[in-house]
Amino acid sequence: MLSSDYMEGAHPLIMQRLLETNLEKTSGYGFDPYSLEAKEKIREVCDCPDAEIQFLVGGTQTNATVISAVLKSYQGVIAPDTGHIALHEAGAIELGGHKVLTLPHEQGKITAPAVESLLNGFYADGNHDHMVMPGMVYLSQPTEYGSIYSKEELTAIHNVCKKYHIPLYIDGARLAYALASHENDVTLRDLARLCDVFYIGGTKCGALFGEAVVIPNPDLIPHFFTIIKQHGALLAKGRIAGIQFLTLFTDGLYLRIGQHALEMAAYLKTELHRKHIPFFYEPPTNQLFIILPDQTINALSGQVDFCFWEKYGDTHSVVRLATSWATEKEDINRLLSLL
Amino acid sequence: MLSSDYMEGAHPLIMQRLLETNLEKTSGYGFDPYSLEAKEKIREVCDCPDAEIQFLVGGTQTNATVISAVLKSYQGVIAPDTGHIALHEAGAIELGGHKVLTLPHEQGKITAPAVESLLNGFYADGNHDHMVMPGMVYLSQPTEYGSIYSKEELTAIHNVCKKYHIPLYIDGARLAYALASHENDVTLRDLARLCDVFYIGGTKCGALFGEAVVIPNPDLIPHFFTIIKQHGALLAKGRIAGIQFLTLFTDGLYLRIGQHALEMAAYLKTELHRKHIPFFYEPPTNQLFIILPDQTINALSGQVDFCFWEKYGDTHSVVRLATSWATEKEDINRLLSLL
Amino acid sequence: MLSSDYMEGAHPLIMQRLLETNLEKTSGYGFDPYSLEAKEKIREVCDCPDAEIQFLVGGTQTNATVISAVLKSYQGVIAPDTGHIALHEAGAIELGGHKVLTLPHEQGKITAPAVESLLNGFYADGNHDHMVMPGMVYLSQPTEYGSIYSKEELTAIHNVCKKYHIPLYIDGARLAYALASHENDVTLRDLARLCDVFYIGGTKCGALFGEAVVIPNPDLIPHFFTIIKQHGALLAKGRIAGIQFLTLFTDGLYLRIGQHALEMAAYLKTELHRKHIPFFYEPPTNQLFIILPDQTINALSGQVDFCFWEKYGDTHSVVRLATSWATEKEDINRLLSLL
Amino acid sequence: MLSSDYMEGAHPLIMQRLLETNLEKTSGYGFDPYSLEAKEKIREVCDCPDAEIQFLVGGTQTNATVISAVLKSYQGVIAPDTGHIALHEAGAIELGGHKVLTLPHEQGKITAPAVESLLNGFYADGNHDHMVMPGMVYLSQPTEYGSIYSKEELTAIHNVCKKYHIPLYIDGARLAYALASHENDVTLRDLARLCDVFYIGGTKCGALFGEAVVIPNPDLIPHFFTIIKQHGALLAKGRIAGIQFLTLFTDGLYLRIGQHALEMAAYLKTELHRKHIPFFYEPPTNQLFIILPDQTINALSGQVDFCFWEKYGDTHSVVRLATSWATEKEDINRLLSLL
Repeated sequence: MLSSDYMEGAHPLIMQRLLETNLEKTSGYGFDPYSLEAKEKIREVCDCPDAEIQFLVGGTQTNATVISAVLKSYQGVIAPDTGHIALHEAGAIELGGHKVLTLPHEQGKITAPAVESLLNGFYADGNHDHMVMPGMVYLSQPTEYGSIYSKEELTAIHNVCKKYHIPLYIDGARLAYALASHENDVTLRDLARLCDVFYIGGTKCGALFGEAVVIPNPDLIPHFFTIIKQHGALLAKGRIAGIQFLTLFTDGLYLRIGQHALEMAAYLKTELHRKHIPFFYEPPTNQLFIILPDQTINALSGQVDFCFWEKYGDTHSVVRLATSWATEKEDINRLLSLL
Repeated sequence: MLSSDYMEGAHPLIMQRLLETNLEKTSGYGFDPYSLEAKEKIREVCDCPDAEIQFLVGGTQTNATVISAVLKSYQGVIAPDTGHIALHEAGAIELGGHKVLTLPHEQGKITAPAVESLLNGFYADGNHDHMVMPGMVYLSQPTEYGSIYSKEELTAIHNVCKKYHIPLYIDGARLAYALASHENDVTLRDLARLCDVFYIGGTKCGALFGEAVVIPNPDLIPHFFTIIKQHGALLAKGRIAGIQFLTLFTDGLYLRIGQHALEMAAYLKTELHRKHIPFFYEPPTNQLFIILPDQTINALSGQVDFCFWEKYGDTHSVVRLATSWATEKEDINRLLSLL
Repeated sequence: MLSSDYMEGAHPLIMQRLLETNLEKTSGYGFDPYSLEAKEKIREVCDCPDAEIQFLVGGTQTNATVISAVLKSYQGVIAPDTGHIALHEAGAIELGGHKVLTLPHEQGKITAPAVESLLNGFYADGNHDHMVMPGMVYLSQPTEYGSIYSKEELTAIHNVCKKYHIPLYIDGARLAYALASHENDVTLRDLARLCDVFYIGGTKCGALFGEAVVIPNPDLIPHFFTIIKQHGALLAKGRIAGIQFLTLFTDGLYLRIGQHALEMAAYLKTELHRKHIPFFYEPPTNQLFIILPDQTINALSGQVDFCFWEKYGDTHSVVRLATSWATEKEDINRLLSLL
Repeated sequence: MLSSDYMEGAHPLIMQRLLETNLEKTSGYGFDPYSLEAKEKIREVCDCPDAEIQFLVGGTQTNATVISAVLKSYQGVIAPDTGHIALHEAGAIELGGHKVLTLPHEQGKITAPAVESLLNGFYADGNHDHMVMPGMVYLSQPTEYGSIYSKEELTAIHNVCKKYHIPLYIDGARLAYALASHENDVTLRDLARLCDVFYIGGTKCGALFGEAVVIPNPDLIPHFFTIIKQHGALLAKGRIAGIQFLTLFTDGLYLRIGQHALEMAAYLKTELHRKHIPFFYEPPTNQLFIILPDQTINALSGQVDFCFWEKYGDTHSVVRLATSWATEKEDINRLLSLL
């Protein structure tokens, strides 16, 4: 029951707004007033008044659409080898024609020197005209391991990208949990300043679905609307996404959703430590990775739906736990009572 | 205000079910009990107990995913030149690598002899190894013009497809309005029997979004789940689509939605005739095509959001009107009062 | 034996140069001195000193590589419906992700007004953001029907392209036969001035294989070398193409090849008229289209390998005849003796 | 002058046959008698009478065409991380929509246990429906490092492929040099028995260009001809490839070409050892990898065109030397005199 952060519907305030507006008639495809207002709110909070904002449906779709819109045919995208695009998107990036150029991760992250070294090596190779040119950098904030990049780290990667004239793209599928982390010093304004394109995740942060793509300088992707349509990513009833993001960015709901999940994660962490459950990794966001005997996992199957992460020796496994806007102390206590 | 059938949110019963189930925790990606039950309901109403059912988000996405899953790389899809895939999907089919082989339409429809003639011509051509092989037939029920295929017409096209061993695919974006038409004699069971794959449209028939793909014989598309994922078309919170379709297929809601729209279309038609507004085409479903002076259209811009269809001579235009589950007589009267 | 212009090997002067240079050691991939010199010769004869020249292997490959290099993902290419890319490249353009937007041909040609009307119509359509944007114009000189564009016609199309800011691309698979035609007033210099990219055909004009792509302003396609490699179109022994084009562009061989073929075509035309064989179309280049009874065609099968073009009524067919650098009067006399 | 094995034209016997047949008129696209005879010869020497044989132009083109013809959209190809498709084809495989799933190489090779472990891991992962399914195995014989697989090693990989029902594809760009190696125990018959598809390289083994794809069971790739056309890989004058392969497979020329190159490589190796030039790797085929001071390399630039392989410490580099059918002792002596 803590296997992921997309096990419930949407935050009640979102459901309420969808209900209140349900019978209104509006234009389709994101030209309705709610979508327009939501975009304006996001521009404000990101402090980039000229940004193009588009609402897509899901993370893989957003990554595939943005990356193929940005890259030239002969370019690939640099990513950590644990990046969502590298591992868990069923080859969506390659289907779009592009190689994912992977770097070894450190708790889900890559570093500016590693990116620079890859770029350096590419241009130093006499054969580089026969190779895939690195054309952008992809990373996730927080990462798939729940770790976060500091402003210093992001700035360093940003600087490498600038030096090599390639855009930086940040996948914010779980961005609310990074923004709410005590360890975080990267604001939405920082992201808008340091990235060429990023998305603010809705699906895993309290919406029914939806990801808000932010392009601070819209010249990066001309005709993005048509590209979205061509990728089958354009919602006819665009307002359904617009209303959700308008609600998320009204009265700080997005941040509060992150904060609640992190409070629950802190409680869960404390209680797991109290029970001496060993940790594989304790990231500063809403995910925790613990080590359980396979025997326990099997014994509880049926009662608890664990998210298997990887094997840990022959008899144990790493299991991921995730909290969300909807996690209650009772959910956690119930899980703990079984361990 | 009658410019399309996707101007409102969802049918109130759908909103109610989404609200009632909102806080439940379920598995993602369509493995939740609501999605499973919805699939079972659709299998029953289609009388194809082995069918694979998958819920995707929108029409272009569904067409692009299904067509590229079915075709071999060297094949194209036969479609009417007014087919959605031929005209209004921004090249999504070509992005997937396939040519749309168009036939001239008759009020949005193609005929069995025309399909056979194209297939015949292809195999008769000594150069056909250098040409795009026709690999499937695409049509819409109802068509983009609101017309519908009779059981006899569909059977004839089905027979041509069988003869040439190519699958028949039906785009049912507005299927509710065909099913509810007085002129219709094609049931869901007939579709499941006559097609190799089709989809039951949700977005334009009362859902927030969602299209239910039905594959009567699942062997047609192995690994369809992964293909959906790869196309960015997999919903994390799959239940949001599942609950909608479960509601649509409980107590005949899908049919009732169609019926209400057609009753409103009948009323609209009667009143337009009473006002001597000339018709371009009067299809038997929820769309009507009238001819208005450009002057009128311009004069009302701001008050009425017309869906421009095509020019009609130098001074007039064809305008599409569409009714939906949400259309009220007052909406119609208000429009009529302006014309 | 007159069914096409690619039935023999290469012009003897080409074979001789390949033989003379066979044992020399040179760099690969087109960096050898022969390729460099050939490129320089072509730049001179086209009067565009900055042009990028690349040698590819065949016509379909060249069209697919150039078109996908030039177009954005959401763009299509305007072409006559009889264009090689529209009909006889097995969907190579669509495999690259792009729609071919066809215009009805007139003896293989399209006109500037027709192109402008298509572009106009696209931008006038309120839905054009949901449609494939026309991104370039493709035509062949001479066309697949052997007809040629006059300088006036090409200039008009060039002007429309400029007006709409889209490039003009000319497929010169049989360019030698246009250049040598008495009716022709379009030189290589004109092509380099009026097109954004074109290719000078080798395969059908006396080479073993090879097409020389000319990009007058190389900024049109950055990293074209890598794009060629990625399309599998880069020759390891690039000099084999280079030597052929160097020979073709030494002492006017390319033009002489065209002239010989046209002299043979003139002789063939005269003799066919003398025999009262009806013509379907008499183009001014190296192809002729005659009408023969199917009975005759069948009776001669085994002796003559006709190139079937299309049916002509129930009992006759159109047959294409083509002359080449290698056609001799005896070849023609032998064919005529059988008709 | 020993930087690669594609620095000269073609073996003199090939040039002679091209010359002798130059003026004959034959059908195009590989239906000429020479191509048909060449295919028959290859079927014989491979002992697979039903095999489909097709002649393509180059290696990258062949790999891209074959791999995309074999894989389903959601599948990737397993390859060593030094495989040509993984590194030096400019993303041609990804352009075709597929991920290259790399395994760490050992002197260019991968092992059956490593392949099995990757396949095992994939199916053991609970998330594998969200991942790229391994759909075939690619390897090179000899490898890019000049190493060769033994019959035992290939059989083991073949068995893993059979167990997991995925095809094995072997890139034989330099196959002549493997076949001629003293250490080799894998014949063409073995390849035809152990692989599902492989190609016999011409470009790097004495032809002007050309690779012969062998599909022992043609059902593996229906409509391969059209797929080749669609990839721009179909030669109009198909006989130019056919005549070359007919010559290569007449009187054992292909093997003799390999033998000569290996004799020259043996001589080169002996002389390098005599001069105490350190080796990075001494493979059993026509490539040698030596370590030279960067100073030497720079000093000789202009006189010798070295093929840089990789850095070796701060002051040295690995350089590849390659012999071919055309290498003479004088070439070697000249190089040695400079070192």
